[in-house]
Amino acid sequence: MLKTLIVGASGYTGAELANYIHRHPCMNITALAVSAQSTDAGKLISDLHPQLKGRVDLPLQPLLEVSEFAAAADVVFLATAHEVSHDLAPLFLQAGCVVFDLSGAYRVNDTAFYHTYYGFTHQHPALLEQAVYGLAEWQSAKLKEAKLVAVPGCYPTAAQLALKPLIDNSLLTPEQWPVINAISGVSGAGRKAALSNSFCEVSLQPYGIFTHRHQPEISAHLGTEVIFTPHLGNFARGILETITCRLKPGVSQTQVAQAFSEAYADKPLVRLYEKGVPALKNVVGLPYCDIGFAVQDEHLIMVAAEDNLLKGAAAQAVQCANLRFGFHETESLI
Amino acid sequence: MLKTLIVGASGYTGAELANYIHRHPCMNITALAVSAQSTDAGKLISDLHPQLKGRVDLPLQPLLEVSEFAAAADVVFLATAHEVSHDLAPLFLQAGCVVFDLSGAYRVNDTAFYHTYYGFTHQHPALLEQAVYGLAEWQSAKLKEAKLVAVPGCYPTAAQLALKPLIDNSLLTPEQWPVINAISGVSGAGRKAALSNSFCEVSLQPYGIFTHRHQPEISAHLGTEVIFTPHLGNFARGILETITCRLKPGVSQTQVAQAFSEAYADKPLVRLYEKGVPALKNVVGLPYCDIGFAVQDEHLIMVAAEDNLLKGAAAQAVQCANLRFGFHETESLI
Amino acid sequence: MLKTLIVGASGYTGAELANYIHRHPCMNITALAVSAQSTDAGKLISDLHPQLKGRVDLPLQPLLEVSEFAAAADVVFLATAHEVSHDLAPLFLQAGCVVFDLSGAYRVNDTAFYHTYYGFTHQHPALLEQAVYGLAEWQSAKLKEAKLVAVPGCYPTAAQLALKPLIDNSLLTPEQWPVINAISGVSGAGRKAALSNSFCEVSLQPYGIFTHRHQPEISAHLGTEVIFTPHLGNFARGILETITCRLKPGVSQTQVAQAFSEAYADKPLVRLYEKGVPALKNVVGLPYCDIGFAVQDEHLIMVAAEDNLLKGAAAQAVQCANLRFGFHETESLI
Amino acid sequence: MLKTLIVGASGYTGAELANYIHRHPCMNITALAVSAQSTDAGKLISDLHPQLKGRVDLPLQPLLEVSEFAAAADVVFLATAHEVSHDLAPLFLQAGCVVFDLSGAYRVNDTAFYHTYYGFTHQHPALLEQAVYGLAEWQSAKLKEAKLVAVPGCYPTAAQLALKPLIDNSLLTPEQWPVINAISGVSGAGRKAALSNSFCEVSLQPYGIFTHRHQPEISAHLGTEVIFTPHLGNFARGILETITCRLKPGVSQTQVAQAFSEAYADKPLVRLYEKGVPALKNVVGLPYCDIGFAVQDEHLIMVAAEDNLLKGAAAQAVQCANLRFGFHETESLI
Repeated sequence: MLKTLIVGASGYTGAELANYIHRHPCMNITALAVSAQSTDAGKLISDLHPQLKGRVDLPLQPLLEVSEFAAAADVVFLATAHEVSHDLAPLFLQAGCVVFDLSGAYRVNDTAFYHTYYGFTHQHPALLEQAVYGLAEWQSAKLKEAKLVAVPGCYPTAAQLALKPLIDNSLLTPEQWPVINAISGVSGAGRKAALSNSFCEVSLQPYGIFTHRHQPEISAHLGTEVIFTPHLGNFARGILETITCRLKPGVSQTQVAQAFSEAYADKPLVRLYEKGVPALKNVVGLPYCDIGFAVQDEHLIMVAAEDNLLKGAAAQAVQCANLRFGFHETESLI
Repeated sequence: MLKTLIVGASGYTGAELANYIHRHPCMNITALAVSAQSTDAGKLISDLHPQLKGRVDLPLQPLLEVSEFAAAADVVFLATAHEVSHDLAPLFLQAGCVVFDLSGAYRVNDTAFYHTYYGFTHQHPALLEQAVYGLAEWQSAKLKEAKLVAVPGCYPTAAQLALKPLIDNSLLTPEQWPVINAISGVSGAGRKAALSNSFCEVSLQPYGIFTHRHQPEISAHLGTEVIFTPHLGNFARGILETITCRLKPGVSQTQVAQAFSEAYADKPLVRLYEKGVPALKNVVGLPYCDIGFAVQDEHLIMVAAEDNLLKGAAAQAVQCANLRFGFHETESLI
Repeated sequence: MLKTLIVGASGYTGAELANYIHRHPCMNITALAVSAQSTDAGKLISDLHPQLKGRVDLPLQPLLEVSEFAAAADVVFLATAHEVSHDLAPLFLQAGCVVFDLSGAYRVNDTAFYHTYYGFTHQHPALLEQAVYGLAEWQSAKLKEAKLVAVPGCYPTAAQLALKPLIDNSLLTPEQWPVINAISGVSGAGRKAALSNSFCEVSLQPYGIFTHRHQPEISAHLGTEVIFTPHLGNFARGILETITCRLKPGVSQTQVAQAFSEAYADKPLVRLYEKGVPALKNVVGLPYCDIGFAVQDEHLIMVAAEDNLLKGAAAQAVQCANLRFGFHETESLI
Repeated sequence: MLKTLIVGASGYTGAELANYIHRHPCMNITALAVSAQSTDAGKLISDLHPQLKGRVDLPLQPLLEVSEFAAAADVVFLATAHEVSHDLAPLFLQAGCVVFDLSGAYRVNDTAFYHTYYGFTHQHPALLEQAVYGLAEWQSAKLKEAKLVAVPGCYPTAAQLALKPLIDNSLLTPEQWPVINAISGVSGAGRKAALSNSFCEVSLQPYGIFTHRHQPEISAHLGTEVIFTPHLGNFARGILETITCRLKPGVSQTQVAQAFSEAYADKPLVRLYEKGVPALKNVVGLPYCDIGFAVQDEHLIMVAAEDNLLKGAAAQAVQCANLRFGFHETESLI
């Protein structure tokens, strides 16, 4: 049994991690931690997330001495803010823990990226070099050796799972950037008091047009420019992305289908649609990314759907841990 | 044209008031004010409430000198917190304004009530004595002379409109308290950042069981005890109340129907249902309170629905103003 | 491994049953059946319920020859209409299957009840006599021997779990009927095309006032009269019931708490709240019934919440099967 | 007062038309009609649409003799199915009525279009020639003389209002087709029983990819190819369209802004955003189309929002009628 610490366990992703690790046959929860300043310290996780009542009734401990928590853990999940993860990851790594970071702090191996898009100076370029980007379907080899896994962002997971087979097979024309229209549930903004998240203010609307951090994350890992327009939707969970691309002349629907089936034939958490495209409800509460597509002439439209808190965060983190430690890829997830 | 000031115009009720006064043929908006500390001061109301864009693009002014605002106004609507209304109402009255207060500060003529349920010592018992409780269908005579109108709470409006005809006609048995189960949209909690209002936290749930301030407001004005259980619903606007009562032995369905039709036959903003009961959508965005009922043996179930921001707040305030100044009762409302 | 047949597998409850049985370590799905006339016959269950894609991709077979299906099954779940269950249950029983019926066809041992509330003449009074009412927490002894289990209705499950400890301990005054206000998600109406279920028509509203079939089901099993007012809510899943009662003079909050803890201390699927009351989201997607309460003077308000498709249907059916066959009570459920 | 007939008054658009015409100072409702076979014939419109109760309590009459209805009307609104409008329009025109058709039957002056996209052979090419396409902001001159107005589809209204200023000013590169991602509320599917519209089945999802009829309607009127991907959203009303385009080299943000302000400076029902982009809630229940945009390098993203039943149907129809008869353009609409 791997001794597991979850830091940032008060948030929505933290609660999902607690649920998965609780029922994992080879991992157990050593401790749940929150920042030392958090007003949630001392409460039970099931007070904040009552769906866990009767299953995970553990206290949220203030993260006072990192070394004490580290000494008691084999594995650490960081469901923390970017700057917090940036600072915590090296401490837990030094103590010998394997770290799965769900923030953006180690996703792109380029310190300039952090300066531009996250507004801080990255202090750990060697860790950026070492971190494995946990897009699980594409990194199973590297994950087996990983000490630090940077779990991808919610939007980038769906976008890359849809686009990567096409780009790797050179099926898209380079002259026209893929247009990614993405709609996310409100939980993507985290568990906090904010007018923009309040029930009466939430309404379908784009945000961060041309400026969202996930655009360069997607571009950096795909090696291609994209137009990425995120929207806030009037629902709690899930992401649906509609991606419009231009194929190279002569590329057929069959070639597209083949690229997908080759990429994901034996990947249990990507579900390909032979006909039709996914709806959001197909994936909410589940660890999958569902992908469907349609072709007309040289136009390709792909639709990818996932639960932003699961395949877009907690489930992919656990999937990475399963691959890292040699458990079944979907252990505790389905 | 009555010169009209709206204080607290940044909130949901303030925006509805602005909409009604803007289109009122006999009233116009002199100024929109917010508290001097508000971060919204200086913004346009249509920046906060974009549905008003192109119709009401006026600035939200900080309420620095009450006397200046008062001098420029004939009529003042206070869509402010209880304590703020408590302090402002006498200042505007002294300046000769007619005041419509949408808070709880002047609703119950009993200083002890404020000590117990609102946590402050009421400083203006003479104004409590003088204030007219603006349950419009029942107070048209008093409203004609009113200087200070205390517009009823959202829950009490629907509850009293349903119960008052029965109580005034002595149709209910005194041994059994009416059970009021009420469900309100989230806008009832106001426009503010709060975890409890955040999209992912809102979920159908009772709150304030046995302790909500609206229970004593209802009881005081009806002159009878009630059990009042408010619920937060997963929708932005509207209130639906299901009220279970016991009739006196021998009281018939016809007597109940007659009590309602006598009370509201010529009241344009109460709509009685001859068959069936109202659904929430029947009233959202509209200034009505809809009432339906069913009788079986000595059991009576009434269903009352209204838009909490309209008949439960802004529309009833304007209805009171219409009655006060001799305009048509529904002017600008339908 | 128990060979398991699910009849009515195209519906929402059928899909939940398929999910539970699929992951059950001691049961497996032998076949999924739908009525011979169903246009869904021949489709995969995952075509209708895409959340099952990749896990349960079995075809929906037309129920042409009951005897063939019966011969291949040890256990049958009937997620079918009342009249269909009425006819099918004896056929499967004759073939030696253990039958779990999720309809109302065998819930009340009184043929007159079916004439009055279901509009048909019950042909199998001997089976009514023999059927075990599967309110699992209260019937574990009888369930061990059961051949036919009548799984309770969704509303009656929550209502009885809340009321039964009080009634069995004689804590309520008989003079005042408990008032049950219940709000259900739209899935309670089943998977079908109907204007009343259509997205734009659904709106919070009571229905079936004084006439809903679940009122006599509750009364018959509790042995007391109740007032039951169901409402349709604007959400897909879940039931929340707010139950207002009058205690006998002198009954204390402690006695109420004790009645609950004695009844459910070792019952894993009833979660008692020491403080506060449940919200709907606490139980959606989960097999629990959550119960909280508040007392003031002689007034008691209880709040019970469950997922109507799970503890109100599929999960309770599987819980009954677990008790029947000696598996762990929560096997495959949590 | 213009005598006005509404055919198809049982639907959502019909109810909105009834509301507008009822409060119009220069038009009144002569009759509300439904198809002779409709089970709604004989009911009051306020039985079907209770928000109209107390305001429009008129019966829905079966359309038995068109000539009789036509003889009593100056103006006819057809809120009917395409084939029905196709047949009815000439009958009402012959009788001297001015006809506003809200279906697709007369929107594109090309009989082949109807064969391909609507599946019927158009019998009235002369009327197609004569019909004025009622994109009100762009057709005010032609509308003044119109006998038959083909009110645009809901999606095409927002798409064209956003794209037309750019195309007319030749600001877009012809090499890259505009990508229109549109999300509509469920009311766009009409008032009817259908599994796809049922509350539990609705979930954010694209539909009609590459095949929706509104794509050729948009292309035909704009004179340019577009990629149009409609989505069903989990809300009752409103459309939000995010449109991604490529500008010609050197075109600046200022030029885009100028194109919009020149097009809509004096158009009261198009609201331009100087900063930010519209959210859905800004327009629901209102007759506006709101447009905002952002430019980065040669990429342009526009966001257009409207209420699909209002600016996308009923409000635009009344706006066309106002322009046709010389009333104020927004009469009865705001």
